Amino acid sequence: MRIALGIEYDGTEFSGWQRLSHGDTVQGALEHALSFVAAHPVEVTCAGRTDAGVHGRCQVVHFDTEVQRDMRGWVLGACSNLPGSVAVLWAQPVHGDFHARFSARSRRYRYRILNRPVRAALEARYVTWERHPLDAARMHEAAQVLIGEHDFSAFRAVSCQAAHARREVLAVSVRREDEQVIVEIEANAFLHHMVRNIVGSLLPIGRGEQPVAWMGELLAGRNREVAGPTAPSSGLTFLGPRYEARWGLPAEVSQ
Amino acid sequence: MRIALGIEYDGTEFSGWQRLSHGDTVQGALEHALSFVAAHPVEVTCAGRTDAGVHGRCQVVHFDTEVQRDMRGWVLGACSNLPGSVAVLWAQPVHGDFHARFSARSRRYRYRILNRPVRAALEARYVTWERHPLDAARMHEAAQVLIGEHDFSAFRAVSCQAAHARREVLAVSVRREDEQVIVEIEANAFLHHMVRNIVGSLLPIGRGEQPVAWMGELLAGRNREVAGPTAPSSGLTFLGPRYEARWGLPAEVSQ
Repeated sequence: MRIALGIEYDGTEFSGWQRLSHGDTVQGALEHALSFVAAHPVEVTCAGRTDAGVHGRCQVVHFDTEVQRDMRGWVLGACSNLPGSVAVLWAQPVHGDFHARFSARSRRYRYRILNRPVRAALEARYVTWERHPLDAARMHEAAQVLIGEHDFSAFRAVSCQAAHARREVLAVSVRREDEQVIVEIEANAFLHHMVRNIVGSLLPIGRGEQPVAWMGELLAGRNREVAGPTAPSSGLTFLGPRYEARWGLPAEVSQ
Repeated sequence: MRIALGIEYDGTEFSGWQRLSHGDTVQGALEHALSFVAAHPVEVTCAGRTDAGVHGRCQVVHFDTEVQRDMRGWVLGACSNLPGSVAVLWAQPVHGDFHARFSARSRRYRYRILNRPVRAALEARYVTWERHPLDAARMHEAAQVLIGEHDFSAFRAVSCQAAHARREVLAVSVRREDEQVIVEIEANAFLHHMVRNIVGSLLPIGRGEQPVAWMGELLAGRNREVAGPTAPSSGLTFLGPRYEARWGLPAEVSQ
């Protein structure tokens, strides 16, 4: 029996999603909790791995088990065996063909920038601080060139292990909400550090140091050396993947 | 010279606002940082003390000094000597008659309740969890009876040291924002635990366990023993005081 779970986590004190032999990871904490509930070792497969310090609003995983538990039992049992920084939001039986990673049609990320003269005290775990005034409308305009299928080598970490750099950005927006500038981006899939590298290049445009057209130049140039620095992990939240409605998953992760 | 400051803080790891001989407090951290900038001991007076675990969005303090620093110097100097959980938002010279506590015409608080079947993982420091569905409209209706000047003994902590229990509530609202129910309340001043005790009594009304009229009965009865339990500190944020416009403080704390 295959089960899908929705997972929320605060990534601040984790060494990222992926299980490591040393260091606390979200995957490690989740598998430990699920193994306790299942009374057998459980391995999970996620929709999208996240780096150290990156948060998850609705990560999706699947795992296989022969144990009979009602879905509420999986949720409550896992939550009571997880640290306070990870929660299982829902559990749902899925068809054996469902795969958290390969069935996902797209992934959505949000990046929050606290834009004021003084650093964050409240919610410091969830934002990155930019003291210079940002023009969100200008950043939004610049980002629109990313929409469509492109070679995103300009925004690809050197450590990226993907076979190629072509990805399709479905939507990207930049808006201001009071003291925060919020970047949201949806793509079929992402390269390593792609969102943080895109944000790192939108920042000089928002500060007026680069023209709006710079984003298109970077994209066309395919040269990581020229684009802006990688923005810090704390501002980044993986909102979650989206699947076809036929899998019957909650609305939050369905198309 | 008298200077007013706006202060933001995450109260999670503090033993409250007020300086103690033992334990980390926001006041202690702030005075330590300001004394370093002033090069003489600084004592601050705040608009409203907060308990352990309660956050501040724009607490206001004043202090006196003969040292000449530009306002940017106070802000940056204090911030660089404060822990990451406290920030000075602004500094402003004020008339010698200004008093952070006695000049405040009102105070505003926000209480955030995460209302879903599963506990918080993200933003767990800033919410209280309620698993049973809450009817925010019903809570809002019940809360309106608090508006005006009343004896708030029903919502007063036994530890409260105020001379009397009469306070004037200027506005109170309860609204839903997705998974959260948000209570906001403004009064001329508050008794100890008053907001948390009011929220603790609105919760059974929101769950449908008590009628809307219960709030009025509690208020009229003036009996703390009958009202709901004190809601946890983590959901509470002191948004800040409000002063008359003549003091010339930032819009956030002016009427």
